[in-house]
Amino acid sequence: MDEIKYKPIGIIHSPFKKTEGTPIQVKGAKGIEGKIELFKEYTEGLKDLNGFSHIILIYHFHLVKGTKLMAKPFMNNREHGIFAIRAPVRPNPIGFSVVRLLKIKENILYIKDVDIIDGTPLLDIKPYVPDFDIRKVEKIGWLDKKVKKLPSSRDNGRFTYNE
Amino acid sequence: MDEIKYKPIGIIHSPFKKTEGTPIQVKGAKGIEGKIELFKEYTEGLKDLNGFSHIILIYHFHLVKGTKLMAKPFMNNREHGIFAIRAPVRPNPIGFSVVRLLKIKENILYIKDVDIIDGTPLLDIKPYVPDFDIRKVEKIGWLDKKVKKLPSSRDNGRFTYNE
Repeated sequence: MDEIKYKPIGIIHSPFKKTEGTPIQVKGAKGIEGKIELFKEYTEGLKDLNGFSHIILIYHFHLVKGTKLMAKPFMNNREHGIFAIRAPVRPNPIGFSVVRLLKIKENILYIKDVDIIDGTPLLDIKPYVPDFDIRKVEKIGWLDKKVKKLPSSRDNGRFTYNE
Repeated sequence: MDEIKYKPIGIIHSPFKKTEGTPIQVKGAKGIEGKIELFKEYTEGLKDLNGFSHIILIYHFHLVKGTKLMAKPFMNNREHGIFAIRAPVRPNPIGFSVVRLLKIKENILYIKDVDIIDGTPLLDIKPYVPDFDIRKVEKIGWLDKKVKKLPSSRDNGRFTYNE
């Protein structure tokens, strides 16, 4: 099937300059502030976004090297299928995070609870809406007993090269 | 900045053969069943996903024609910035849905609450995890009074050509 081509719409800035030490998921990134530099030509698309407390970011894991179908997530020592974990070494290295939107000034978005590495290319911003995006979940598989470790888990650079 | 290239990992099948009449968001798609046909070479990546009740689908809005920075969402007659709405005519036409996972048989995933059009190319599957993906939201901007209309809202084909 044909390739699908996207173009970054901006760059995510955060205090995390390398993968090592970057929090795993937003729960470990509580309070961490960052910025989105939206390329100026898209600024008009931000109109009315400031009414939302949270936004969805879809971005490209630009530092990831290679693809795996089975991998060990940071929180477990056993391998799982790549679609059952959130590790970046995916067939399409697409990242997804929900962050808090603090304010917007022209083409700059000030965000909080950022678990994303500095310099990450941004692909899309969507408003986060409970009626669309929140589900009552019964099962979280292998994560069931691991999820408590989350706030203290950090990336160890395993999926990237560190510059 | 450079183009980013992805390849579909599978195809989403649903009862919605054209954009017109397709539910807007999952709340309007309650009970609708569909199937994901993951391309066989990725089957190994599904290991342990069956432990999760819900999954995140990231996909390509393949029928969308063109890009807008301001658009009228289905639920409102006023224009908003494209990043403040969920309409598909985005700079990068990337779709995001959380669906219920019923079962997996080899490379086929049986899913429910599907608001996605038949034949949509799939880019990624992630496990949906409340600790990662659920936030306590204070504000939902222009959607505040509109969100009640959701279960009865349907696509009218406005963003695509209908075959």
